[in-house]
Amino acid sequence: MEKIEHIGIAVKNLDEANALYEKLFGIPPYKTERVDSEGVNTSFFKMGASKIELLEATNKDSAIAKFLEKRGEGVHHIAYAVTDIKAELKRLKAEGFELINEEPKAGADDKWVAFLHPKSTKGVLIELCQDRE
Amino acid sequence: MEKIEHIGIAVKNLDEANALYEKLFGIPPYKTERVDSEGVNTSFFKMGASKIELLEATNKDSAIAKFLEKRGEGVHHIAYAVTDIKAELKRLKAEGFELINEEPKAGADDKWVAFLHPKSTKGVLIELCQDRE
Repeated sequence: MEKIEHIGIAVKNLDEANALYEKLFGIPPYKTERVDSEGVNTSFFKMGASKIELLEATNKDSAIAKFLEKRGEGVHHIAYAVTDIKAELKRLKAEGFELINEEPKAGADDKWVAFLHPKSTKGVLIELCQDRE
Repeated sequence: MEKIEHIGIAVKNLDEANALYEKLFGIPPYKTERVDSEGVNTSFFKMGASKIELLEATNKDSAIAKFLEKRGEGVHHIAYAVTDIKAELKRLKAEGFELINEEPKAGADDKWVAFLHPKSTKGVLIELCQDRE
């Protein structure tokens, strides 16, 4: 793993959260993106070599809607940048980590992504991500 | 704010969590530190320009013990590096953020630190930190 690619934060209202993070960081989000396959609206703020991703649910069955119902607003996942996501998934599976995605899928921000189950990572939902060509 | 300085993760058993993160990252923690004023044992892993800090409670009245009891293991806080922590606290207070620490205090890893209340930051406990001379 190379670096913290981003931290994903679940919020109830993306417009409100964007305004708050703009005050916090002094800069607006550099992009917003709707990801229908995940049922989310997202926004991204640059923070050094990493990003903060805010996530708002667009339907009540999405993972973010369920997270908000159960835990409320807060950190949803940590994403680490990798250069070879398939090799990394294979390595981590062999090390005993539980994979949510056996194969990478297309995620937001032009990435291939896959998640590790928080049961096997001390309560933290971990995303691996690799740039798509 | 300059970058994500570190992500703080609350764990029940630091030795177990260190072993798990060593498998995850392929590298051991570069240091461990006991912070009696906070009632924690900590370890630090380098991850790009940022760090992962694992936190284990050393007494049942510490903030980490209470967090573990209430929420279980998981992300406890996000720390952002700042160059002038006093100026940043003043700015954020004026912007309406609720400060847990009006003045910086000495934290782990040779930093001056201060926290913003998660009530004013959409559920995320935010730490500001500045290198101590």
